[in-house]
Amino acid sequence: MRVMKKINLSIILLFIASSFLVAQRPDYKVVFDMSSRDSISQQAVIREVALIAKENPDAKLEVVIYGQAINMVTKAQSKQAEAIKGLTDNKNIAFKVCAFTLKRNNLTETDLLPAVQVVADGIYEIISKQHEGWGYIKVAH
Amino acid sequence: MRVMKKINLSIILLFIASSFLVAQRPDYKVVFDMSSRDSISQQAVIREVALIAKENPDAKLEVVIYGQAINMVTKAQSKQAEAIKGLTDNKNIAFKVCAFTLKRNNLTETDLLPAVQVVADGIYEIISKQHEGWGYIKVAH
Amino acid sequence: MRVMKKINLSIILLFIASSFLVAQRPDYKVVFDMSSRDSISQQAVIREVALIAKENPDAKLEVVIYGQAINMVTKAQSKQAEAIKGLTDNKNIAFKVCAFTLKRNNLTETDLLPAVQVVADGIYEIISKQHEGWGYIKVAH
Repeated sequence: MRVMKKINLSIILLFIASSFLVAQRPDYKVVFDMSSRDSISQQAVIREVALIAKENPDAKLEVVIYGQAINMVTKAQSKQAEAIKGLTDNKNIAFKVCAFTLKRNNLTETDLLPAVQVVADGIYEIISKQHEGWGYIKVAH
Repeated sequence: MRVMKKINLSIILLFIASSFLVAQRPDYKVVFDMSSRDSISQQAVIREVALIAKENPDAKLEVVIYGQAINMVTKAQSKQAEAIKGLTDNKNIAFKVCAFTLKRNNLTETDLLPAVQVVADGIYEIISKQHEGWGYIKVAH
Repeated sequence: MRVMKKINLSIILLFIASSFLVAQRPDYKVVFDMSSRDSISQQAVIREVALIAKENPDAKLEVVIYGQAINMVTKAQSKQAEAIKGLTDNKNIAFKVCAFTLKRNNLTETDLLPAVQVVADGIYEIISKQHEGWGYIKVAH
């Protein structure tokens, strides 16, 4: 019986610990879904990432670029090149581009800003982050 | 051995209980991400919140307003003032505005419709709700 | 004491197993939130679903259509009728339409492409899928 009591106590403590984990303030981790060519949306995500990082130095932020947003990260067209370079100096911030989008636009990694990374599948990257408990924000207005 | 059997049974029951919790119909809890100045989007979120609340009196609904959507909740510009007042009479419905957006637009709480609340950070408010298991809907079209 | 050790071991193994479940690559399951009349967005979701299904034959994909997107699935207006028919031949792909949206547009099930299904509430369908651990992608640009 004493063994059972100890075990029951363990299980109860386990539940309390779990509840506490759920109730406390979550870490600031966000994946931004960026598929817009719109310059206001492209400026908005840059501004948001910069502000969050400034206010929360430990925040982990990732912008996944695919579809219509590809111009945001090409050497030839990006209007956010300087800003993206500055942000990615922070190791907690990443800009990731979908390889399917590159291929469809006849682009290769050499056409991209050096600060951005390529992932095989932008949508899978986003849902993987969601699955790991990151918050999700679609950038659109 | 009898003790072990009892414990194994406890663990099995725990798993079954967890599965059941996952499988049952989730509560109707939604955080709406509203960053659009577009009047069709602003009308859409009002209509959706009103309809969900009517069909599901226990639904918990929160609209987080930031970025371009700020005009939706200012005394000077909102075209949804009456609707928002009506909806927020329901204690299960909240409209929350991002303080960073206010500051960037040189607005203070006194410029807002009385029914809306201010949160320090709209994006963090959204991801906190996601973390608590609320559904997430980006309002855009 | 031996019983306690066995139990402690069970609990530790349980934790390790849970961590492993969280860390492994998630299944490819996505609910697409489609509320846009925009033809580029409608083409984009069709292209994305087709590509994901081709690259990941076991992927489970669902497109929930509501609001402004209703024209995408009506016999009278859809420009994606052939594509939707082709995709829904795959039992892992579904297109689901919100019954509230149908009603508001004075449409019935007979006005819809035969390949699409009707759900009582499109937003509840989306948040239910999120609750079951599916990834969420808002279609907008």
